[in-house]
Amino acid sequence: MIVGAGPGDPTLITVKALETIKAADVIVYDRLIPTELLSHAKPGAIKIYVGKEPQRHEMSQEEINELLMRLAREDKLVVRLKGGDPYTFGRGEEECEFLLSNNVECEVVPGIPSFVGASAYAGIPLAGRSFASSFAVITGHLAEGKDMKEYLGRVRSLAQAADMLVILMGVKNLDLILSEIAKVRGWDEPAAAVMWATTERQLTVAGTMSSLLDAWRRGVIINPAVIYVGRGVNKRVKLWRRGAEYSTWGQSSQQR
Amino acid sequence: MIVGAGPGDPTLITVKALETIKAADVIVYDRLIPTELLSHAKPGAIKIYVGKEPQRHEMSQEEINELLMRLAREDKLVVRLKGGDPYTFGRGEEECEFLLSNNVECEVVPGIPSFVGASAYAGIPLAGRSFASSFAVITGHLAEGKDMKEYLGRVRSLAQAADMLVILMGVKNLDLILSEIAKVRGWDEPAAAVMWATTERQLTVAGTMSSLLDAWRRGVIINPAVIYVGRGVNKRVKLWRRGAEYSTWGQSSQQR
Repeated sequence: MIVGAGPGDPTLITVKALETIKAADVIVYDRLIPTELLSHAKPGAIKIYVGKEPQRHEMSQEEINELLMRLAREDKLVVRLKGGDPYTFGRGEEECEFLLSNNVECEVVPGIPSFVGASAYAGIPLAGRSFASSFAVITGHLAEGKDMKEYLGRVRSLAQAADMLVILMGVKNLDLILSEIAKVRGWDEPAAAVMWATTERQLTVAGTMSSLLDAWRRGVIINPAVIYVGRGVNKRVKLWRRGAEYSTWGQSSQQR
Repeated sequence: MIVGAGPGDPTLITVKALETIKAADVIVYDRLIPTELLSHAKPGAIKIYVGKEPQRHEMSQEEINELLMRLAREDKLVVRLKGGDPYTFGRGEEECEFLLSNNVECEVVPGIPSFVGASAYAGIPLAGRSFASSFAVITGHLAEGKDMKEYLGRVRSLAQAADMLVILMGVKNLDLILSEIAKVRGWDEPAAAVMWATTERQLTVAGTMSSLLDAWRRGVIINPAVIYVGRGVNKRVKLWRRGAEYSTWGQSSQQR
């Protein structure tokens, strides 16, 4: 099973996904999952870390695919645990397609994507009738062989077309990305970065495009971050209270 | 608390959201939540239905706002339960802003949006390195006073800019919407509609833009539906097995 662990707060996993963790014989997990979740595994369950640091893959995608297939063929209940949602830039479709084409059953359990969790916990709604009828999400991580100029053209078109623009994994080239967006939205457009969204380390930098660029130049904007550009960012002042995003439920109960 | 109930399968609610239901003194809920969830309420909890049929609002937004405030001021733990995610076209920001501006504390718990749940359960990934680096989401529900021509222009720009286009609440005007998208993507572009996503009634119509229009004309595409346009739709043939989306966990265990 390919299972989304959600954005970071361990209580933001779904009931269904948590049940799969409890039942699993083997859990194959990524870097950005809430590690508290592994404590729900049954005694004797095998936990395998397959990494994925930004610049350094502990295991190639092909090796992960082969590992999942080998484990599943041993009749083990294998849970492949991924941060966020498997089908939202999560490569779940690569793993699931490989397994099914090798006659291994594969079920996908969705998770809350980082940009949805960050939206709730930082008070930045994605869309609503008074301020945004659309939003667009783009990765800042260029696929191999992709041209930066072409990519920035895509960013500009999305900034023109969508009310709210969301950029994932975009910290490295944020100066180029913001400069491109500014061509159509201007530097005064509301913008924010939410780092370590929904975890106890969550940090939000909200302001305008130009203040966000300034923060990036000072090294304040770091991975993992979700970037938002659009009027919804301004809702934050009326929607957010310090600590309000940390529930009194479950493991993340401390206010900060 | 304003709480997302997720896309339909009652086991796709988060652990955190379920805990709030168990603790609530009052649950104020919408039409499209999984009603099985209400059975988790404690004995004596009050459950209030506030409707929202497509053409007929049982209670106006203002009345709902006032109700939530009145209940919270009685020192009750009030859970406002909404389908999907409160900040993704869920009007959670309207209710939360109203409450906070009246000095009533308000926490927002995110949920899996319908288009994310439908993606996993129908085998239509939203984005991934081999086929889509961006996706855009737009509502088909025109806000009051909005011009249809202007709206369709927005749809066309998004269809041009994003790899995958997702349309929510777009059944009513689907012929106009598809005709607009076809101007830039053509009628052979892969397209799908997922109705009653992640519930036991889930039904998917997948094909091309033109076959989707044909299905709509025959009355097959009905509310609630998530519409997808883009190459990710073609992944479905390699990612989906009948019944695979219904887990062996929890309440939705029957295969169909």
